Amino acid sequence: MIKRLEILTAGESHGKKLVGIIHGLPAGLNIDLDKINFQLVRRQRGAGRGQRMQIEKDTVEIISGIRFGKTLGSPIAVMVKNRDWENWEQKMAPFGKPVGEKISVPRPGHADFAGSVKYNHSDLRNVLERASARETAMRVAIGAIAMQFLDNFGIQIKSHVINIGGIKSSDSFIKYCNEDTEQSAERIDSAHLKAEKSDVRCASGITANAMIEKINKAGENGDSLGGVFEVAALNVPAGLGSYTLWDTRLDALLSFALMSIPGIKSVEIGAGIQAADMSGSQFHDPLLIKKGKIIRSQNNCGGIEGGISNGQPVIIRAAMKPIPTLVKPLQSVDLKTMQPSPAHKERSDVCAVPAASIVGEAMTALVLADAFLLRFGGDSMEQVRNNFFASK
Amino acid sequence: MIKRLEILTAGESHGKKLVGIIHGLPAGLNIDLDKINFQLVRRQRGAGRGQRMQIEKDTVEIISGIRFGKTLGSPIAVMVKNRDWENWEQKMAPFGKPVGEKISVPRPGHADFAGSVKYNHSDLRNVLERASARETAMRVAIGAIAMQFLDNFGIQIKSHVINIGGIKSSDSFIKYCNEDTEQSAERIDSAHLKAEKSDVRCASGITANAMIEKINKAGENGDSLGGVFEVAALNVPAGLGSYTLWDTRLDALLSFALMSIPGIKSVEIGAGIQAADMSGSQFHDPLLIKKGKIIRSQNNCGGIEGGISNGQPVIIRAAMKPIPTLVKPLQSVDLKTMQPSPAHKERSDVCAVPAASIVGEAMTALVLADAFLLRFGGDSMEQVRNNFFASK
Amino acid sequence: MIKRLEILTAGESHGKKLVGIIHGLPAGLNIDLDKINFQLVRRQRGAGRGQRMQIEKDTVEIISGIRFGKTLGSPIAVMVKNRDWENWEQKMAPFGKPVGEKISVPRPGHADFAGSVKYNHSDLRNVLERASARETAMRVAIGAIAMQFLDNFGIQIKSHVINIGGIKSSDSFIKYCNEDTEQSAERIDSAHLKAEKSDVRCASGITANAMIEKINKAGENGDSLGGVFEVAALNVPAGLGSYTLWDTRLDALLSFALMSIPGIKSVEIGAGIQAADMSGSQFHDPLLIKKGKIIRSQNNCGGIEGGISNGQPVIIRAAMKPIPTLVKPLQSVDLKTMQPSPAHKERSDVCAVPAASIVGEAMTALVLADAFLLRFGGDSMEQVRNNFFASK
Amino acid sequence: MIKRLEILTAGESHGKKLVGIIHGLPAGLNIDLDKINFQLVRRQRGAGRGQRMQIEKDTVEIISGIRFGKTLGSPIAVMVKNRDWENWEQKMAPFGKPVGEKISVPRPGHADFAGSVKYNHSDLRNVLERASARETAMRVAIGAIAMQFLDNFGIQIKSHVINIGGIKSSDSFIKYCNEDTEQSAERIDSAHLKAEKSDVRCASGITANAMIEKINKAGENGDSLGGVFEVAALNVPAGLGSYTLWDTRLDALLSFALMSIPGIKSVEIGAGIQAADMSGSQFHDPLLIKKGKIIRSQNNCGGIEGGISNGQPVIIRAAMKPIPTLVKPLQSVDLKTMQPSPAHKERSDVCAVPAASIVGEAMTALVLADAFLLRFGGDSMEQVRNNFFASK
Repeated sequence: MIKRLEILTAGESHGKKLVGIIHGLPAGLNIDLDKINFQLVRRQRGAGRGQRMQIEKDTVEIISGIRFGKTLGSPIAVMVKNRDWENWEQKMAPFGKPVGEKISVPRPGHADFAGSVKYNHSDLRNVLERASARETAMRVAIGAIAMQFLDNFGIQIKSHVINIGGIKSSDSFIKYCNEDTEQSAERIDSAHLKAEKSDVRCASGITANAMIEKINKAGENGDSLGGVFEVAALNVPAGLGSYTLWDTRLDALLSFALMSIPGIKSVEIGAGIQAADMSGSQFHDPLLIKKGKIIRSQNNCGGIEGGISNGQPVIIRAAMKPIPTLVKPLQSVDLKTMQPSPAHKERSDVCAVPAASIVGEAMTALVLADAFLLRFGGDSMEQVRNNFFASK
Repeated sequence: MIKRLEILTAGESHGKKLVGIIHGLPAGLNIDLDKINFQLVRRQRGAGRGQRMQIEKDTVEIISGIRFGKTLGSPIAVMVKNRDWENWEQKMAPFGKPVGEKISVPRPGHADFAGSVKYNHSDLRNVLERASARETAMRVAIGAIAMQFLDNFGIQIKSHVINIGGIKSSDSFIKYCNEDTEQSAERIDSAHLKAEKSDVRCASGITANAMIEKINKAGENGDSLGGVFEVAALNVPAGLGSYTLWDTRLDALLSFALMSIPGIKSVEIGAGIQAADMSGSQFHDPLLIKKGKIIRSQNNCGGIEGGISNGQPVIIRAAMKPIPTLVKPLQSVDLKTMQPSPAHKERSDVCAVPAASIVGEAMTALVLADAFLLRFGGDSMEQVRNNFFASK
Repeated sequence: MIKRLEILTAGESHGKKLVGIIHGLPAGLNIDLDKINFQLVRRQRGAGRGQRMQIEKDTVEIISGIRFGKTLGSPIAVMVKNRDWENWEQKMAPFGKPVGEKISVPRPGHADFAGSVKYNHSDLRNVLERASARETAMRVAIGAIAMQFLDNFGIQIKSHVINIGGIKSSDSFIKYCNEDTEQSAERIDSAHLKAEKSDVRCASGITANAMIEKINKAGENGDSLGGVFEVAALNVPAGLGSYTLWDTRLDALLSFALMSIPGIKSVEIGAGIQAADMSGSQFHDPLLIKKGKIIRSQNNCGGIEGGISNGQPVIIRAAMKPIPTLVKPLQSVDLKTMQPSPAHKERSDVCAVPAASIVGEAMTALVLADAFLLRFGGDSMEQVRNNFFASK
Repeated sequence: MIKRLEILTAGESHGKKLVGIIHGLPAGLNIDLDKINFQLVRRQRGAGRGQRMQIEKDTVEIISGIRFGKTLGSPIAVMVKNRDWENWEQKMAPFGKPVGEKISVPRPGHADFAGSVKYNHSDLRNVLERASARETAMRVAIGAIAMQFLDNFGIQIKSHVINIGGIKSSDSFIKYCNEDTEQSAERIDSAHLKAEKSDVRCASGITANAMIEKINKAGENGDSLGGVFEVAALNVPAGLGSYTLWDTRLDALLSFALMSIPGIKSVEIGAGIQAADMSGSQFHDPLLIKKGKIIRSQNNCGGIEGGISNGQPVIIRAAMKPIPTLVKPLQSVDLKTMQPSPAHKERSDVCAVPAASIVGEAMTALVLADAFLLRFGGDSMEQVRNNFFASK
């Protein structure tokens, strides 16, 4: 009944600031500001990003909840300034007379149309400003705090991109796991490190180049692309999540969190969609005993059985649709005149899959932090640590 | 802050009864008991189901919240008896001395192992009884009540199976939508009706036969199969769900609900995973004007844009892994002795994808009912109806 | 985000059964059925109770979540049969044609009128059946399970009645605390034990007799009475609840829970309303050091400072209004004819304050169990115990 | 399941800023910034306030969710700067080396001691900064937005102070109601207006003077005072809240919200604690018919029957303890040395009851806005209005 981990975010894309509050992390957690800002940098870079990424250069301001580098136990408020605010101050003013033209032609694939119906907005800017993926910057900032919490218990979140616009990598985290469960964490980490150096967050240089080429071509055509990324959580202790109620299952919660990232159209756990084509004797991951410890010979279940983490790497995959804002706009309808019209244009990227993988890491961290705190409890880091290590 | 639609379910697979409570439906809703029982029948039938389905023959008992065929506004409590209780009364007794042997060899793919770590159970029956998919009978019963609510507003939930163990149908709801959006609802309904007559809930007779053969062969081999089902919600009004907070998005909520069904490893919205391979100009669904009304020429977005229903059919696809209980058991470890051992056997089905599609309908109904009530409000059906039709 | 302790209850006053589900208690908790039934007995007895109490003789049936006397970690479903069901089967039938006359004259003070507006009910029975205090039997049953959890950590819930219809006891838990904090737990326990033997749950025999006389006289006059009870929770560890968000404060949560008991019109913590008349130097409870331990010289704060338990007994007081169903009915209006009419009569008690104090204990137990689990975490009793004792 | 009205606040007393986010208000709501700031002014003024009130002069900055004076439907983020930040920048720095002395002597009655146990803080400043009543400024700002929502439906929140340190007014909102229900709203409004002009928010000039004198004397003695305030909500439509589940009752929710205000030790609804001394025939409010409409001859129930608003003014009363920070400090213990020590001193007020009444108004507005939206639904003001007036 009492709130445990709670999050609210706010802020329009071209508004003054993004704001986020996270409540429920224990007191005494060391927070490194650079690590938060580093996550924001990771979200902004990558091939296929538009001009805005240059303007943004997001950095975080901590407003509350942290003192002398440690959490207080009170809610942590975080802000990210819009560095382009001076150009939007009038058009996005909280008060005063409306300025600028109304947008009335929705972009197919964006919230524009459905949002105007829902909120009865005649100016689609009133929809698109919050519906913009810009809000994920705040998720990344807050997720970066959750990651620093998880880091105390060895839990690491990794990601890479394995498909952009149909250019697919032959590698994947789940493949690493299935080839050699004992090396899976190392190989995942290694792919992640390579992905960090890639403009498309793809570990394979050759595939990465093909992806970049594809993005460039799409950009030239005024078109956009989607793709697939994978997230892995390493060293997740067994016992997070539960089968006891539908909404306590870790796989369901991760799916909730990942599908909530703008543009995501599919979420898979472990072998995911391939599970449908396999027999039980192929799919399920046998338990073996090795030097007195239980190990697995594969990880098709993606580290979750019966809705509970089983000690193997947690593997999630998400497919993202192409960005709905096209330079060569799609056919649409002007809602004011009810006449056909090309869709509204708004500055945008060609491909945001690398960025989405960073948001995917953040959302994974938030889900795991909450599940972790439910299992281990504790109001201070000392207490959480005691509880965690006692249960080992 | 005040609870709106809330659900809790309880009950072990071989316990005395399953129990469920749903709170928050308006007063004055007509409830037809036969329609609830019919959903339970639909969940139980199908090729690939084991002996238990014969024993079960589930029917629902309404304990509260309904009087003379109408909801009261108070919580509705529902029960489903275990018709095999007399054979389990001792082994599953709430009180008294432990009876029967403990289970100590977890089945790979089931909650057995992870659940034993989480809850510190040495007898795996203490895990598997609640982790069993038997609990989904109660979700179906409660979902059947939500469906009767939605039915008042023309919202219909449909489903079919399009893949079992790799035997795939060439048809799909999303294909129907993309071929002809104006006929999509009719064609979905027609496929659904055909699926109703199929033992595998597949509309294509030829594919269905191949699926059944595949199931039979797997059964003979002591093996199991998974597959893919689709759910469509027709006549969903535009405006359900929101982009304003990550956990208010309709696609995320549906993904949460569908991924929570035991065995599901992937959830897709609309074109789903295929979105990754398409360009923006292909993927996004243009808005056209026809006879003064906005229509779409395709439905790749699956009826949801920016996390909000857009008036098109809502299409969800879920992939299910093969059932983890195998007659020819997988390799495992005896947790008592820490020695290799074949996994525990428990009576089970060969394939439960058709059943899962019924659970998928139920979970979809619950998510939509909640989102509907958030948008339209109302404590009595009269009030909800007024609000709904006024907004048209 | 994941549910921790969750409760739903259902059931109409004259319906077939009351049902409750509690989710989130750890696995491996020993449950004694007699202790649950004993709480139901305690709720039913007492002077001023009507005929129904004789019919009821409530006992609980455990449907799920407990096996061989221990919790499984899965949701616990509990049922209490209506022993008078055969006389109500037709009038309260879930299905079939309406039977019996509609009630159309609301009782002032009951939910009848406001409920009919809210739910658009023309038959007030559709309101009063769930609005009846009968539903508190299920709260007591579920609270009895929470109490058995708390008992493992030495936390004890006590109560007594200190006012019935203006007949006031000169004693109170808060007085015991303020006279001698070191003996407060003992004195509270002793008053509680005396109250257990009293028909009005009042520790002082002389006052109890005056209360009973008052009740008898009110009964003779066709009138009803309210009163005041106190609840104390002993051995509550410091650190439950929080000041960090308004809805995490232990005092606010207790007030929420106690004010939710039908008929309660005021809730006080510690010295409560008297705090308004005191100066800071009188009211606040100094910290003293005695044999190296921090003690208090008084407990005006009722064991809660800044919304957090401080290690002292937690003291809550609640005032109950007189029962709104009078044998000599109040003036009202027939909602069908809109003509003046004496209020509807329904079988009822004269005074339910002793019963309400038992419900107050149950609600206190539920709030404390939730706050305890948030602080100490754990999925099994072994884990909760480790965490709890490590933090000592 | 989907979030409706959600609030998070953050910020330390001497931190850079207070931050709050409110999600769930409909789009198209006119917001007047001056009305928000006016509420902050009301919270700050009054006799008995310390020096800080002069420094503060709080004004709100809207960061998001409002454009050109209207809500967007997206989360509204609000900030209040600490005007004294330059003096605290080092002592409250989020990062960098600890500066200044640690506080180690808890103030009795404050969160200091219990908070240090909970969060394992050795510097009590880490507790007291968030536990300070300064956080209520953000509640008032957010509540002011909720009030502007309610105002569209005629709902008005009023308050006054009726007791300071034992100096009691002979008037009260509940008395006005009971003397003449038909004039109750007018008389409440009139008392509220008089209270607005009083330094202690007391409508009676003579009593107000006595209260101020009492405060001055307490201030001279280095002591502090509490008191009692009343809140009334006028024109609340019948049908808010419910008896169906314990945590949906309007009285319980109001009690939750009011008891969460720092220093509150008792919450009463309607006649409150006096209900205990009355008989049913006295207490309950008969229904009368007048010119075809149902009226009441008194309002002891405080506008709530069976947990549901009944159309009468909603009346709540709260008692506040004296401020725990005393210039003449109480006896305490130095937690570092475990030696007796006078309590830590922190700049503070002598009496904050008038301020608390403003916070009480804000919390009441938030509870009512949520209950209102649950009943009437709607994503835009047009839709909410339609739903509301259709139900009339």
